[in-house]
Amino acid sequence: MPLVQITMLEGRSAEQKRKLAQRITDALVEEAGARREAIVVAFHEVSKESYASGGVLMADKGK
Amino acid sequence: MPLVQITMLEGRSAEQKRKLAQRITDALVEEAGARREAIVVAFHEVSKESYASGGVLMADKGK
Amino acid sequence: MPLVQITMLEGRSAEQKRKLAQRITDALVEEAGARREAIVVAFHEVSKESYASGGVLMADKGK
Amino acid sequence: MPLVQITMLEGRSAEQKRKLAQRITDALVEEAGARREAIVVAFHEVSKESYASGGVLMADKGK
Amino acid sequence: MPLVQITMLEGRSAEQKRKLAQRITDALVEEAGARREAIVVAFHEVSKESYASGGVLMADKGK
Amino acid sequence: MPLVQITMLEGRSAEQKRKLAQRITDALVEEAGARREAIVVAFHEVSKESYASGGVLMADKGK
Repeated sequence: MPLVQITMLEGRSAEQKRKLAQRITDALVEEAGARREAIVVAFHEVSKESYASGGVLMADKGK
Repeated sequence: MPLVQITMLEGRSAEQKRKLAQRITDALVEEAGARREAIVVAFHEVSKESYASGGVLMADKGK
Repeated sequence: MPLVQITMLEGRSAEQKRKLAQRITDALVEEAGARREAIVVAFHEVSKESYASGGVLMADKGK
Repeated sequence: MPLVQITMLEGRSAEQKRKLAQRITDALVEEAGARREAIVVAFHEVSKESYASGGVLMADKGK
Repeated sequence: MPLVQITMLEGRSAEQKRKLAQRITDALVEEAGARREAIVVAFHEVSKESYASGGVLMADKGK
Repeated sequence: MPLVQITMLEGRSAEQKRKLAQRITDALVEEAGARREAIVVAFHEVSKESYASGGVLMADKGK
């Protein structure tokens, strides 16, 4: 019964999240033998001011 | 000092979250011997487009 | 369909986790109208060297 | 730069996790336009005594 | 390649998050030998109605 | 009252985690005005088979 929590920048469409949920769920069913109905995928979307890599906010990248 | 993180669909009232925080904290004090002041409960609320079960977004259920 | 993730010090018994899962699930059903079968509770247990409050590891408290 | 955190029962092989990481990463690249090198997938594995659905520990299911 | 997820009350400025991301990333590089480019810091901000300590919502403190 | 959850490869010493907890807590007090006693830092350590970047398990890197 895997729980999948995805943290990513805001701005993806419902259609993108729909396909991600489908493909991630399929992968868990096919590769890990999980029961489909028991798989949950949640998207936690954060702004560019709330996400940093290498110590630099995404809002500051490319400046 | 348990940390409780709850991911759920948005739309619950402050009163519902108030009661959930109380009851979950009480349970941790009474069943696990946790110190009340050290218990944190945080609610992460997501939209129906950001939550899927069985590979289907909540926004698409019942359609 | 709430997901409940609890981070706490290792050492609780299965019986303690059993009662916590029951009471937290009951609270979500009764206070938030969640569907019982859809509620997941996961315990992430960490050692005293992997948990700090106030900047001090639990392993160093009381020394 | 999505972060994917998966909570699931312990017991999956390295080969299963290898394939899951590949497929989930591919899905994020192809459906969400994420940069491959920036995608992280972490598996948090819990025991049957640390995972409950419907208020019942996995360790107690089927008894 | 540490992932750092911070749950805190909403209301911090971009400048505060910028400095936090820098200092936390520096700490991981200097104390844990992590590779700078591989460190991610994400802030999950919640409202006062979505955060409780000691069983009391932050929105109710000081009342 | 920030909660800091760090997912990283296993193998860091208690001393490394001690210093990380101190410095991260200091940063939150000094940059975000958080109350020291209310800050929690938890380390979730995973094996090289449970952590992937770019779709490749850490266990497979450098092979």
